[in-house]
Amino acid sequence: MSGGRLRAHNLAISLDGFGTGADQRLESPFGHAGTRLMEWFFPTATFQGLTGTRERQAVDPATEPDDAYARRAWDGIGAEIMGANKFGPPGWQDDPEWRGWWGDEPPFHTPVIVMTHRELPSLEVGETTFHFRSGSPEEVLAEARDLAGGLDVRLGGGPSSTRSFLAAGLVDLLHVAQVPILLGRGERLWDGLEGLEQGYRIESETTPSGVTHIVFTRD
Amino acid sequence: MSGGRLRAHNLAISLDGFGTGADQRLESPFGHAGTRLMEWFFPTATFQGLTGTRERQAVDPATEPDDAYARRAWDGIGAEIMGANKFGPPGWQDDPEWRGWWGDEPPFHTPVIVMTHRELPSLEVGETTFHFRSGSPEEVLAEARDLAGGLDVRLGGGPSSTRSFLAAGLVDLLHVAQVPILLGRGERLWDGLEGLEQGYRIESETTPSGVTHIVFTRD
Repeated sequence: MSGGRLRAHNLAISLDGFGTGADQRLESPFGHAGTRLMEWFFPTATFQGLTGTRERQAVDPATEPDDAYARRAWDGIGAEIMGANKFGPPGWQDDPEWRGWWGDEPPFHTPVIVMTHRELPSLEVGETTFHFRSGSPEEVLAEARDLAGGLDVRLGGGPSSTRSFLAAGLVDLLHVAQVPILLGRGERLWDGLEGLEQGYRIESETTPSGVTHIVFTRD
Repeated sequence: MSGGRLRAHNLAISLDGFGTGADQRLESPFGHAGTRLMEWFFPTATFQGLTGTRERQAVDPATEPDDAYARRAWDGIGAEIMGANKFGPPGWQDDPEWRGWWGDEPPFHTPVIVMTHRELPSLEVGETTFHFRSGSPEEVLAEARDLAGGLDVRLGGGPSSTRSFLAAGLVDLLHVAQVPILLGRGERLWDGLEGLEQGYRIESETTPSGVTHIVFTRD
């Protein structure tokens, strides 16, 4: 294999399979889902940015089982691929001031490829460089692997871009956090993926937060 | 409360939410899903009909965590409600010889109400009497409660009839067994149930078989 693995982590979905709600807007990136898909993630040491062992001890120990999943997303990653809707609200391509949701220091610290139909100039924000590409999943992954310098590539979501890489058979690890709510509408993760389980090992675990972590892996 | 609780147990769904596959036929009651949604259930002591403690010991102990869920479906039940597709393949209403999938001794041993648009004469098979009704979920439940004589009523599936009782707010306990396969097509359980989690406690547990048991309860 010429490059590293393609890994998706911390992709939260509702019990009815929606990875984001309907009506995504600037003030509500997850649409009518609000923050409900990510409530399990916010109190974790990883989200709080507490990386040292001593700092971790300040966190509610009940969040540790979730954090054990959350923190793997940052291990050995050299580049990220994300969908257009993760980078900004509908229409961000027409706003020359838009630099992502994350302020002056985005949490990626690696090259990031944003999949969008418009080719735009690359953008450096803090330690992160965003590249904008309209290629196929295969083409984008090839470039991301070059950028990752031998490390793995993170597939950062959202649900529709993740689904296109799953459908193309390109994903080596998929970690889904299934949250026990029913959103009823939005963007589904699993559509059109009949038989996806073939060729993967699947492990599931429910944590005290009520979230079921489901991990697909292949060698 | 004039009658007992309405409880649904052992309703198996795929990770993408299908409670049965597409193309249900006489020779394949679950359609293209085959038996894959029920593989966790078949080796349990409950399915094997082994009810005594001594008999249970002959069963693979790895199936015990699943059986702990499976066997609750038979506790304190005085009547069952089922959808038309659980009673027979499409068109069974036109076959005067059709007496259900279960042979001479169906496993219910209580009155069963089959929801169908045709009013047909009641049918006695072994210790089970089937009644055929076209009423609303509320009407059917009222009759089932009378038949149950103070015990609980089991909502026996399939997914679309279960969904109609959930949408009407009539279900007191829902046990879903989520199987880690993707069916891609068929009958979805969760459609149109946005916000269902409100008013329920939800507990989830993954067993060694890989199934995640999800239980909604309310008082």
